[in-house]
Amino acid sequence: MTQDTAHPGSVRPGGRTARVREAVLRAAGDLLVERGFATLDLAEVAARAEVGKTTVYRRWRTPAGLVADLLVDMAETSLPHSDTGSLRGDLLENARLVGKTLTDPRQSRLFRAVIAAATSDDTAAAALRAFYDTRLTEWSPCVTAAITRGDLPPETDPRAVLSAVSAPLYYRLLASGDPVDETAVSAAAEAAALAAEQGVFAVSTTKPTD
Amino acid sequence: MTQDTAHPGSVRPGGRTARVREAVLRAAGDLLVERGFATLDLAEVAARAEVGKTTVYRRWRTPAGLVADLLVDMAETSLPHSDTGSLRGDLLENARLVGKTLTDPRQSRLFRAVIAAATSDDTAAAALRAFYDTRLTEWSPCVTAAITRGDLPPETDPRAVLSAVSAPLYYRLLASGDPVDETAVSAAAEAAALAAEQGVFAVSTTKPTD
Repeated sequence: MTQDTAHPGSVRPGGRTARVREAVLRAAGDLLVERGFATLDLAEVAARAEVGKTTVYRRWRTPAGLVADLLVDMAETSLPHSDTGSLRGDLLENARLVGKTLTDPRQSRLFRAVIAAATSDDTAAAALRAFYDTRLTEWSPCVTAAITRGDLPPETDPRAVLSAVSAPLYYRLLASGDPVDETAVSAAAEAAALAAEQGVFAVSTTKPTD
Repeated sequence: MTQDTAHPGSVRPGGRTARVREAVLRAAGDLLVERGFATLDLAEVAARAEVGKTTVYRRWRTPAGLVADLLVDMAETSLPHSDTGSLRGDLLENARLVGKTLTDPRQSRLFRAVIAAATSDDTAAAALRAFYDTRLTEWSPCVTAAITRGDLPPETDPRAVLSAVSAPLYYRLLASGDPVDETAVSAAAEAAALAAEQGVFAVSTTKPTD
């Protein structure tokens, strides 16, 4: 009964199950954008999606379950990585993409809502982590290409470099409230590139003992 | 009637109002740590604090109002900045402090909960921003001292440097789920120091036109 809940991506595209999922996730996304996660209610999602309440409760079970499935859907629409020929160019493209997402009125609210959901629910937290895994993996070739060109130390961890690009922009959105503007975007890319070149993100082969 | 709600710090220490506030904020903090923001309930807070429900509703009004006052209380306990004599030393101390907070079981849950509250409520968001203002201002002298020593460009923005130290650690806690460990802490401080030295956080006097 819960088979298709565990693997929502495996449902036949265009079938009734896929159409129900699409309508429910759209309604859930709209409500998250309008009011955030704290008030997300399955009955309201069902009503807005024009889908039976029982179907929504049976398939997604909790508001966090809905958020988790929404994140699976969001991961599928991750944008392909850049290939500008230079590390700085690629990291700047990445920073711009993150900056664009976090300043888009709908997307920024949606990201804040799913991050909020992940703070209090393990299923949503695992889905959020999987979402960032997908994004960070998609963009890793920018870092490995720079290693191949000899622009970065061979032991550089692509995930750490790309996290360093995103982090200052998320910190502004979620914590300090400072603007996610072009200055912040450029600084995020440049700081990550400089640190990577200096070996700050090189994975050490010897573990510290303390 | 709501005078003391607007300026909760102004109540007489040790008075009945202060004792009620202390009990209510402790109960709210405990519940946020246990279950997060989404299920925070004023009646439950009142019961746990052994304070009348009416008092809690009248004074704090909403769960987000409680979180906002909790953040005022948390800002008052911000730790003083380091003075190790070097930028790297000071930024490493700052990164260690943030890392310690975000890995402490109680504190990390509390921070995730108040950040979640800020995603869906403007009052909580303003309080969260004021909290980070206090923290970033407290540590700014580490950056201005480095400028005075000639270690950083004079136009360096202290807030941007300190945000760069915190950001990768918050990104791990809230987004990627990667560990906030000693490697992450050292890399955060070192990357911020390198970028600051190269002028990445220098405030431009000419505004870009695009």
